[in-house]
Parts: sequence; C-alpha cells; structure tokens
Amino acid sequence: MVCVFDVKRECEELFDEVVAIRRDFHKHPELGFQEVRTAGIVAEKLREYGLEVKTGINKTGVVGLLRGAQPGKTVLLRADMDALKVNEENECDYKSEIEGVMHACGHDAHTAMLLVAAKVLSRHRDEIKGNIKFLFQPSEENFPGGALGMIEEGVLEDPHVDAVFGQHVWAGIPSGKIGVRPGPIMAAPDEFRLTIKGKGGHGSAPHLGVDALVIGAQVVLALQTLVSREIDPLNPAVVSIGTFNSGTVMNAIPSETKMTGTVRLTDPELRKEMPDKIERIVKGVCDAMRGEYSLEYVHGYPPTVNDPEMTELAGEALREAFGEENIVDPGISMGGEDFSYFLEKVPGSFIMLGITNEEKGIDKNNHHPKFDIDENALPLGVEALVRIALKFLNS
Amino acid sequence: MVCVFDVKRECEELFDEVVAIRRDFHKHPELGFQEVRTAGIVAEKLREYGLEVKTGINKTGVVGLLRGAQPGKTVLLRADMDALKVNEENECDYKSEIEGVMHACGHDAHTAMLLVAAKVLSRHRDEIKGNIKFLFQPSEENFPGGALGMIEEGVLEDPHVDAVFGQHVWAGIPSGKIGVRPGPIMAAPDEFRLTIKGKGGHGSAPHLGVDALVIGAQVVLALQTLVSREIDPLNPAVVSIGTFNSGTVMNAIPSETKMTGTVRLTDPELRKEMPDKIERIVKGVCDAMRGEYSLEYVHGYPPTVNDPEMTELAGEALREAFGEENIVDPGISMGGEDFSYFLEKVPGSFIMLGITNEEKGIDKNNHHPKFDIDENALPLGVEALVRIALKFLNS
Amino acid sequence: MVCVFDVKRECEELFDEVVAIRRDFHKHPELGFQEVRTAGIVAEKLREYGLEVKTGINKTGVVGLLRGAQPGKTVLLRADMDALKVNEENECDYKSEIEGVMHACGHDAHTAMLLVAAKVLSRHRDEIKGNIKFLFQPSEENFPGGALGMIEEGVLEDPHVDAVFGQHVWAGIPSGKIGVRPGPIMAAPDEFRLTIKGKGGHGSAPHLGVDALVIGAQVVLALQTLVSREIDPLNPAVVSIGTFNSGTVMNAIPSETKMTGTVRLTDPELRKEMPDKIERIVKGVCDAMRGEYSLEYVHGYPPTVNDPEMTELAGEALREAFGEENIVDPGISMGGEDFSYFLEKVPGSFIMLGITNEEKGIDKNNHHPKFDIDENALPLGVEALVRIALKFLNS
Amino acid sequence: MVCVFDVKRECEELFDEVVAIRRDFHKHPELGFQEVRTAGIVAEKLREYGLEVKTGINKTGVVGLLRGAQPGKTVLLRADMDALKVNEENECDYKSEIEGVMHACGHDAHTAMLLVAAKVLSRHRDEIKGNIKFLFQPSEENFPGGALGMIEEGVLEDPHVDAVFGQHVWAGIPSGKIGVRPGPIMAAPDEFRLTIKGKGGHGSAPHLGVDALVIGAQVVLALQTLVSREIDPLNPAVVSIGTFNSGTVMNAIPSETKMTGTVRLTDPELRKEMPDKIERIVKGVCDAMRGEYSLEYVHGYPPTVNDPEMTELAGEALREAFGEENIVDPGISMGGEDFSYFLEKVPGSFIMLGITNEEKGIDKNNHHPKFDIDENALPLGVEALVRIALKFLNS
Repeated sequence: MVCVFDVKRECEELFDEVVAIRRDFHKHPELGFQEVRTAGIVAEKLREYGLEVKTGINKTGVVGLLRGAQPGKTVLLRADMDALKVNEENECDYKSEIEGVMHACGHDAHTAMLLVAAKVLSRHRDEIKGNIKFLFQPSEENFPGGALGMIEEGVLEDPHVDAVFGQHVWAGIPSGKIGVRPGPIMAAPDEFRLTIKGKGGHGSAPHLGVDALVIGAQVVLALQTLVSREIDPLNPAVVSIGTFNSGTVMNAIPSETKMTGTVRLTDPELRKEMPDKIERIVKGVCDAMRGEYSLEYVHGYPPTVNDPEMTELAGEALREAFGEENIVDPGISMGGEDFSYFLEKVPGSFIMLGITNEEKGIDKNNHHPKFDIDENALPLGVEALVRIALKFLNS
Repeated sequence: MVCVFDVKRECEELFDEVVAIRRDFHKHPELGFQEVRTAGIVAEKLREYGLEVKTGINKTGVVGLLRGAQPGKTVLLRADMDALKVNEENECDYKSEIEGVMHACGHDAHTAMLLVAAKVLSRHRDEIKGNIKFLFQPSEENFPGGALGMIEEGVLEDPHVDAVFGQHVWAGIPSGKIGVRPGPIMAAPDEFRLTIKGKGGHGSAPHLGVDALVIGAQVVLALQTLVSREIDPLNPAVVSIGTFNSGTVMNAIPSETKMTGTVRLTDPELRKEMPDKIERIVKGVCDAMRGEYSLEYVHGYPPTVNDPEMTELAGEALREAFGEENIVDPGISMGGEDFSYFLEKVPGSFIMLGITNEEKGIDKNNHHPKFDIDENALPLGVEALVRIALKFLNS
Repeated sequence: MVCVFDVKRECEELFDEVVAIRRDFHKHPELGFQEVRTAGIVAEKLREYGLEVKTGINKTGVVGLLRGAQPGKTVLLRADMDALKVNEENECDYKSEIEGVMHACGHDAHTAMLLVAAKVLSRHRDEIKGNIKFLFQPSEENFPGGALGMIEEGVLEDPHVDAVFGQHVWAGIPSGKIGVRPGPIMAAPDEFRLTIKGKGGHGSAPHLGVDALVIGAQVVLALQTLVSREIDPLNPAVVSIGTFNSGTVMNAIPSETKMTGTVRLTDPELRKEMPDKIERIVKGVCDAMRGEYSLEYVHGYPPTVNDPEMTELAGEALREAFGEENIVDPGISMGGEDFSYFLEKVPGSFIMLGITNEEKGIDKNNHHPKFDIDENALPLGVEALVRIALKFLNS
Repeated sequence: MVCVFDVKRECEELFDEVVAIRRDFHKHPELGFQEVRTAGIVAEKLREYGLEVKTGINKTGVVGLLRGAQPGKTVLLRADMDALKVNEENECDYKSEIEGVMHACGHDAHTAMLLVAAKVLSRHRDEIKGNIKFLFQPSEENFPGGALGMIEEGVLEDPHVDAVFGQHVWAGIPSGKIGVRPGPIMAAPDEFRLTIKGKGGHGSAPHLGVDALVIGAQVVLALQTLVSREIDPLNPAVVSIGTFNSGTVMNAIPSETKMTGTVRLTDPELRKEMPDKIERIVKGVCDAMRGEYSLEYVHGYPPTVNDPEMTELAGEALREAFGEENIVDPGISMGGEDFSYFLEKVPGSFIMLGITNEEKGIDKNNHHPKFDIDENALPLGVEALVRIALKFLNS
C-alpha cells in the first residue's frame, strides 16, 4: 500500500510539471466538444504513464484505466476540459492565445491535476488494490454537457465503477483549503422561455388591444411569489428572469412579450414541480388579462448531490492529509455542474479546491475575464485526488 | 297659455314659502321609506292646491295630478324626499332635530320646490294644455331606491306620461346657474363583494399555506388595469376597492381576504360587460396563485342618461328664462341616481340647480355634514320646473 | 356677398378637379419637409388664382393671400401636405408610386380641397370683406411638426389673423357628415424615455445584484395607477408603455431596463403635471428597490382645443349648408395634431370631414395601408371651408 | 466519575417518576410569569435533592445549584415552564384542568426531565468535578420571554457559567431519536406594524383622494422581492404579512391601511439590516404613490445559534449513549426560542428530543390542541441532559 508521506512529497515534487501543463492548456483553450488538442495531449500522457487509454468517447472524451496489482473495487476520477467564450483580460505569459476563448473556469487546472495524479498513481501500480479510471470529459459548460454522453457510451462499466470523485477549483475558498460538503453542493440550472401574446394597437387606444407588456410585468411580479410564498425557506431556490423584451415603438400597444429565465434548485422533488408551478402562474395571469402564452421549460443538469458516506470518506482522507483546519464547508452553489450525472448513477463526492489568494491579487470569481488561480494550490489538488482514490480502494 | 313674465314673478313672490317648507323638512329629516311626516305634508298641500292625489305608492310615495283645461300630453316632474344617515354639523335655526339624520343631499329643497311649482301651476290650470304629474318618491339614497317600485305601481300610466324631468341641487355649480347636459349625466353605481380563500398556516412556513393576503394584493393591482388598459379612455369608468380585510394575527398566513368595491360607469354596454371582466381578472389571479374565490356583483341604479331632444327643450326653456350665460355644462357625475329608471322608460332630462355661494360660506359638497344651500336659488328651481313643464306641454 | 347657393353649385362643379388634384398628390406622396413637388404645384395654382403667394416658409410651407375687395378681418384656412412611411396596399390607378411612402392620413385630400376652396373664393374677391390666408404646411406627422415654424416665421401676421380653421378627413365619420366639437378634440401626444439602472450579476445570486427587470415590472404596474387612481375619470388620459427591454442573457440579473411610452391628454393643466407624476412614481419605486433612473419627458403637440365661439360659428355655417342632421359630434381623438399651435395663438376650430363609406368598401382607419376616402366627400369639404371662411368674415 | 452504564439504568428506573411529574404539570398548566405552582414544586424538589435553590428570579424563575465534590467548570441546563393559551382537545387522564390553557409545546416535559436529571446527578455529587446549574425559566412563549430577565439578574454568574445546554421536545423527530445541529437551529421571530396614510374620499372620485388600499397592495407585492431578490437563497428568511385592514365602506376611497407581519431569519447580520430594508421599500412605494407611513419594527428573540464545539461535544455524548443511528439533523426551524439569549452570552447547544410516535397516534405538531408526546422518550431526555453535563465537566 502507498505510504501517505510519499504521496505528499511526490505531489509536491511535481509542482513544476502540473503548473506547466496547466499553463499550456490555459494558452490553448478549446470550447466544448472541440477539445482536440487538449484531448490529444491527455491521451498521449496517459499512454506514457502506461494506462489503457480510450479516446473519442462522446466526441473528445478520454478515459485512462489503471489496473492495480491486486483485484479490488474501481474508482473513477473526473476532470473537464472545455473553456469558455470569455475574452481574457489577464496579462501573463500564459494568457489565452485564442481571441474570445478562455479557461475562465479553471478546467485547465482540473485536467492538469488529474493528469499528474494519474502519473503519481501509475508509479505505484504494484501497491494498488483495485482499479482507477481517469476520465477527461468534454463540454461541461454548456447543457447538455459531455458527461451524459460518456456515461451512455459505457464509461461506468468494464470494469464497473464503484465510486466517483470530482474536483473544482473554487474562487470562494482561499488557497490551501478544500471544501467538502455532504448532500447538495450545486444546483440544477433549469431554464425557461416564455412568449406572451396580446393584441397590438395604437398607444392612444389601449382598450382596442391587449397589452402584452403589462401582462408580462404582472407575470414577473407573480413569479416572485414562488420563492417568497410557495417554496420552503429552508429549501434554496432561485427564479430569475434574465430577459424581457416587449414592444417595438414608443406609441403602440405591444402585441408580444418575450422572456427568458433560469431556475436554480437543489431539491429533486421541487425541481419536478417547478415547470407546473411556473406554468400555473403564467396561465393564470394570462387568463386574467386576456393574453395567450407559450412556455418552454428546459431541464439542465440535475442538482449535484454528494453521497454522505463517500463524502465522509473523502473528508477523512483530506483531514488526514491537510489537517482538520483546512477542510471547510463550501456551502451550496446555485450554479450547475454535469458531474451530477455521475452522482445519479454511482455514489461519490464533488470537492472544491480553494484557489483564491488576495495577497497575490488572485481574487476574481470563476467566469470573470480576470479569473486566475493560485498555482500553489495545484499540488494539493493532485494530492487530494490521489488520497481519495487510495482511501476508497483501501476501504 | 301661461305668460312667461308671470311665472318669474309668481315664483319670486313665493320665496318665503318655498324657504319655509324647505326648512321645515330640513328640521325633520326622515330616512328612506320612512318619509311619513314628509309625505303627509306633501299630500296635504297637493290636495290644498286642488290636485288629484295618490299616496302610499311604494310605501311613502305620493303623486299629484294636475289636469289642464285643454287635452294634451302628460309631463311628470319628480322630487325625492329621503334624508341621509349623517349627523348635521351646521348651526342654524332649522338644524336637523333628529340625531344622526340629515338632509345632507338637499332632498328637502327638491320636495319644497316641486310643491311650490305645483302651487304655481295649479293656479293656471285654465291656461294649461295637457297634464302634469308631480311625483314625490321615497328613498333615493339607498339601492334599490324608491323610483322603480313607483314605476311598477303604475305612476307612468293613467294618464300615460310622455316626458319626465327631475332636478338636483348641486354643490358643483354656483347659485344662480343651472346645469344642463344631454347624454350621460350620472353614473351607474354598481358594487361587488369578493372573498378569496387560501389556506392558513404559521407565518414562518408560507409554503405550507396559500397566502390569501398576497393573492388579494395581486388582485387589487390587476384590477387597476381595467381602467388603465381595457376601457376606452373617453368612456368614463371607475373601479374602487373600498375595503380589504385579511388575516387575524401578525404571525399567521391569512386564509381569507374579503374585499368590497364600487364600479361607476355611464355606458350601458360596458356596464353589462363589467361583471365578467372583473370575474375574469379575479379568477385568473386566483388560478395563478392557488386561491379560490366567490364574487358577488350587484347592479345598482342604471346610468342617468338624458334624452338629447328633451334636454334641448329644457335648455331652451331655461335659456329663455335665465339667459344663455346662466346655463352651464355640469359635466358628468360618477355618483348614481334612481331618476335613471324613469329615463329608461320615458324621454326626459335631469338638470342640476346651482346652490353654492362662497361669499355666504356655502361651499360644502353634497353629503357633507355641513352641506347647505343658498336659498336664493330656490325660486329659480321652482321657475325651472314650471317653465320646463309648460315648454314641453306647448311643444 | 357670396350667395350660399352659388357656393354649393360651384363646389360641386369642381368635383372632377378636386379629385384629380387629390389623386395626383396621392400618386406622388412626399414625407415631412420634403414636400417639394407638392408645394410647387400648390404655389403654382395659388398664383394662377391670382393670390399673393409666399413659399419656402419653414422649408416647404406655402401661404396664399386673398385680399377681399372690402377691408375686414382675416381668416386663415390650413391644410397639411406630408405623407407617411407606410407602404400602400390599395390597388387603384392613383396608387402611390413611391415605395414605402403613402398618403395614408389623407393630407392629399386636405391640400386638394384647400386649393379648390382657394379657386372658388378667388373668383368672388369682389364680394369678400376682409382677407383669407390659405396655408399649406409641411410635416404634420412628426413632432415638432411644420406648423410651429411657420408661426415663428410670421404667418399669423401681415395681415394679422383673427381666426383659424382646419379640417381633417376622418375614418370615424361616414361620408356626407361633418364632425364639429367645441373644446378638446385631439389629445397631446407626449412621450417619455426611461432607463432604470440596477446591478448585474449571475442569475443564481440575485442578492448580489439589483434586478432592474423586476424594478421595471413594478414601475409598469405602478404607472397603471396614474389613470386608475390619480386622474379624474372624466378627464381622458392614457399612459401606454410602448417598449420594455431588459437583460441580455437568460441566466444573468439584468442591470438595466429601458422603456419608452406615450402619454395622451386633452387637459393642459394635467399635461403640465404629468412629468412630475410619472417621475414621482419612477423615483419612488426605484428608491424602494435600490434602482437608479433617468427619465426624459418630451412634450409633443399641445392638445387641440377648439374655441367655443368659433366652433359655434363653424357649426352654424355647416348646419346651414348641409342640414342639422349631417353635423355630428366626432368625440375626442387621443391622437395629436399640430393645428393645436394655431389654436394656441388665435381662436378657431378644427373640423372632421366624414369619408368612410362601407358600401364602397372604404372602411379603413387613418394610417392603415389600405386607407382610402370616399371622394364624394371632397366637394363637401371644399364647401365647408368656403362657407366657414365667409361666415367668419361676415360675422 | 459517573459510570455511563449507571446513567442509562438510573434514568430508565426513574421512568415512572418523570412521567408522573410531567403529567402533574400537564394537568395544571400556567401561563408565562404565572408559573407559581410549577415553580413551587420545582424548588421543593430541588431542595429535596440537596441543591442550593434560588427562587423568584425574574418573577417565577428558579435555579438549583449542584456543587460537585471537586472543583471544575460550571454547566447550566435549562428548562422552560410556561404553557400556552390553547384549549386542549386531547382526552386523557392528565388533560389540562384549566380551560383555555395547555402545555401544547411540551414545557411540562422539559421541566420534568430537568428535575429528574437533577435528581440523578445530585446522587453522584461525589463523582462530579465542577458545578451544575439547573435553571427553570418562566415565559418562553411570549416575547420578551423569561430568559433575558434571569440573565440580567445574574444566573450566569456566581459561579460563572462556562456552557449552557437546553432541550426541546420536537414533533418533527420520531421518539427514540435526538436532533443535533451546529450553527443556526431556530430563527429570530421579529415583527412589524405598518400604517399607511392616504386621503379618503368618495369611491367615485379616486383622483380627489390618495388610495391607501392600493398603496398597501403595492407594498405587499414589493415586499415579496425581499426574499425573492435581495436575500441570499442559501440564507433562510421569511417575510409574512399576517394582517391587512383597509377601508370602512364599499364606496369610499380608503384613507388608511394597517398591516402587521413577521420576519424570520437565522443570520444576525441580515437581521440587523431587515428593518432598513423593509422601511426602504415601504417609504419608496409610499413616496411613489403619495402616501405617508409609520413603521414599527420589533426585534423578538435573537436566532438560536448553536456553538459548533459545544454541539460537537453534545453530539459525541449522545452518540455514545444512543448510537450514531439515533442522532439526526433536525434542520432549522423558522420558529423562535429565547434560549438564544443564553447562547449569545455563553457557548452551548440546543438539542431536539424526538417525541412523535405515529403508531401510537402521537403525530401532532407543537402548539396543536391535540399535541402530545411519546412518554417513552422522557428517560432518553433525562439521560441526554445528564450525559451532556458530565461530558462537558469532564472535557
């Protein structure tokens, strides 16, 4: 079995390597399902480490399989590879070379850390009981995401996966600390598109039309009561209308209002009820005011719900490695994450790696054009993955 | 035929009498359908003038019939006799002797003027072609009013009435002037009672209840759009919610909201549509927000709509008597009046007698506890009735 | 003095001519301040009729002065010449030859009728006491309009104008009838532009932003109460929000809402108060909900308010010419009209010429791409102008 | 030191006694600050157990002090003694004998369990290191509660208290289980009273008044946005308006609206901000709509926030006693509790004793007129108190 002290040292010794890989990816960001260069490097390195490698899973996905010397369970570690349509505003050597595309959510670091974790673990194959799958997925940022397709192509079988773990670099946590939380950790980011039809006319004669703009305003206010009145205050939920466009000229009665919005929840039951709740409100207000409507409700990723036991296991591994004082409760994020699909199939946990360092001026939120990470956190992230995998296989 | 100059002089000469009668009624106000003393005096005087008198029509109503020497058409002049539940705050000799009851709307003057008009006209029976009915009705102030019952008991027949005229003392017009207006002159004062049912619960757990208070607030705002969006801006309409009561304690979710309100309109078509419009809005908002409702809509008096030809005839009579400069457009009042029932059956007109005199400090609106009238206007009101009756019979 | 029977006959005899002129203008519509061809024809004809002609007033305006044989007062008759950005959908010989430009409001007829009225009156100079100005203005359709500039360039002086009359072909009235109304006849079409600033953010974290969309919805509903609660129901008013645009993406908190709207009124006092009323509501709601705003309020044309005496005079002239039964109350239109500027300076009246004929299939509203007029009404319009001018000069 | 197995046995052996005491209190409920009989029995028994007893603290409060044989820290265990204005609907031997007063929240059990815990611990004085205060407080149910006054009278000193623990019987948890939760466990139940002043008038003339009812409705809807837009969805908060009364008659414009409501929060920072947030919204909407207001905001109990370390200590004690499987997360309750005042001064924890037993038909929520408890849970509650006290003193 791997010695704990060896893990820390080995990870620390690979600091330069994990930084170099991350910076290379950062310079060459690729959008979802276009991660050709990234996936190529990933596959090459995994092969170099002696793993069984499959590529082209759900377009650009890659999986490396490390079979331990002794039989045992199988754990899957996951990273995502895609970048965002953001124009980088940082000035640094490794600034994105692609105009309008940037690793503004840290997937460059995810991929780099998982690659280095694969390197570390592959050196200790003889000491490992069971198997480790290193999964690099395309397109986490845009629904329907890359995870689901990979699952459908069989990444959880052959050998059958018993536990999954993922990690996100997280601006809400200082570098040096890691967030662990049982239960919901990220929300389901669902979306809706609403069109309300009234009847146009001249602005001086409202009674000859049906004012779709006023109906829309009434709908907006009525939707506020979902969160304020209909949902348990202890069950986090957000309904935000992102756009409202109505009317074409100053002196006409608008015949149409178009809205789009997002709904964020962590409770799967409530999530099932929300389309009906929203439609009830829209329909009622439209009926009240002579409007007609069409409503499209799109479920995005499911909520990311950590398995309590697997989270306890990961927490123990991390407390042992980094001390109780460095393990924090990250709270729930109302953002979404397609790692949730893995958690729907297999018990596991998603952890949050702190990367903010205000002294170094690294303090921007994920998705900001000046987002960056404290690279000192990278070896911790590598070690976290290694430790959790070993803890699970030895449990 | 009666000489015009005689009319004016005769009316002026009866100034003391009309004032005395009015003050007597003022001192002894009687509520609707309780006008026993008033009706008794009316009947006595009409008989004294030699008219055919019927009493007890729709409880306390009185009609006096003056048959002219020559055959002709029949005109009906109407006054109302009831007082209001108002506690008089004037200090004067003729102050109401009944605590909490007051002639705050001037029906004392209406009755006095019509009596004196009957006196004047009865002196000239020989010169009159046709018949004049002097109608004194009970209970104008409270729906369903006294007019409708009198019509049902046949006051418009035997002999058949060809035209009806009524007169109201009106604080909005200065003493010395008279308001004449074709078409709508007073609104239909309809009413509604709404109960919204939700589901109670503890104030800390709104999601376990259905908040009838918030539904009610949404209904109130949605009802504003009836006037602002659904009704022709040139078609006067008011929807006012007079009461809103919801909830019993500070820290519970209200299970019920009760509202009452009034709707004022002058357009009979729109009036027919209003109950459906209001119910549509209430139902839609309740559906939107999981509430149930019951709605009761009560049509009050119809709008008072003056016949254009009869109004032109009355206007001519008045312009001849008082000069063009003293005939004004009173505008529409959003109040109601059961003279409207007569106008639904027979062409006619309702005129407004100016009684405000700021120099004398007489400037309070009808229904005010300090309402009073400039008694100098009383002979004009008498003359107006006489002139209009004669103009019609001679037309 | 002109004989009344001659006027009717002369106008009827010029039926072909007024139709021909109108159709020529209809075929060659010109937008506001671009009425070069139209103004050229107008000036040429006025000169042909022997009038003193001034051109180029406020760009394309034309005035022809007819000095009567005897000294007297001066009356101004006005027509407007501009067309609209409407693509004609009628199929007829005289269909607009300019793609996207159409005389959809009948100014072709206004100009043709006033030209023919000038022809008729110029034949009778010897019988005329006083002067007649025939004014053809540019650009009525678009604020700030052509009338004000012409007034500023002195068209009401030299000789001083004592009364002004204008005429509009009006789809709301059947051909053969003419609308006359004292007091307000058209509204003031004022406009506003509102920007509400909040603070953007991610749609999953509304509390970190200030949702300008929800503030905007609240403002929309609060503005409904202006008409429903703050303005006399007998004083017609409209507040319509024509456009509402907020937010850029589905899952962000909108940082800005932009609205534009129109306010229609006929009461000059209320018109002065409206910017403050609207700003009070916007400011209060923004204060309530942490928003900031900027509000621009633009007064368009004033309300068109007919002088009672001049309207009575015009009504008499028209009743004499066409019979009482053909003179109707057109009601108030909530549209705007820059003839109002003339009425602010000089007493006068604006009349509405009926041009709808359902039997002929002529039943579209002004501004409709299939708007047309019953040309049989044109000689009546000519006669109306002639009669009113003579009535005034002889009064 | 007390042997753990002895504790369980001793507590179980006192089952009959704790039941008998609880039933006696249940039969004789007393409202807040009137707990004279209850406090008398408490003091008598504490003296019987050999404790130093103080009575009459904040009217009816009682404290018993057990000084251990060895010096050490001091722990305070707290029970509340008051009943509710609820009319009991249970049929049982120990039904409340006082009409309209009932131990519907289980304070009878709290007092009985703490008394028996005092009996157990007093037997083992020799083995105890440090001191235990047994505090019985009056009036938890009604703000400002009995706790604060007892603290002001010095119960946390002499000897100085190092930790506090309290326990509530809780219908949300099955009998046999105990709820433990670090951080917020109960909310702050704050309250507000709002009066909005407008200007009355006749319902047919809204523009002459200022409609306080419509302003109130707008305030209600605007307040919904506090929870839906201004407060972190992960930070539980409720704003409920419990009463809304406006207007006196159907056909008048309401001059006044009165509202009362409750605000529930667990975040002390947010709690400080809420009065300003609510006033901002009320003031803005009133400014928008010409109303005036007065707002009274009353802070009730603070949120009950468990100290993480003390909660961990209590959790450990309970897991050792009852097994990990019987310790549950009770979640946050949006109700309030004046144990919070102790926790503001001294670290400690408030635990929730499960008492629901659906098989026995014991399934009503606290405060229900048929609320009851599974008395089998009482020895567990006694043991919990004993264990936690010893754990702390030995830590």
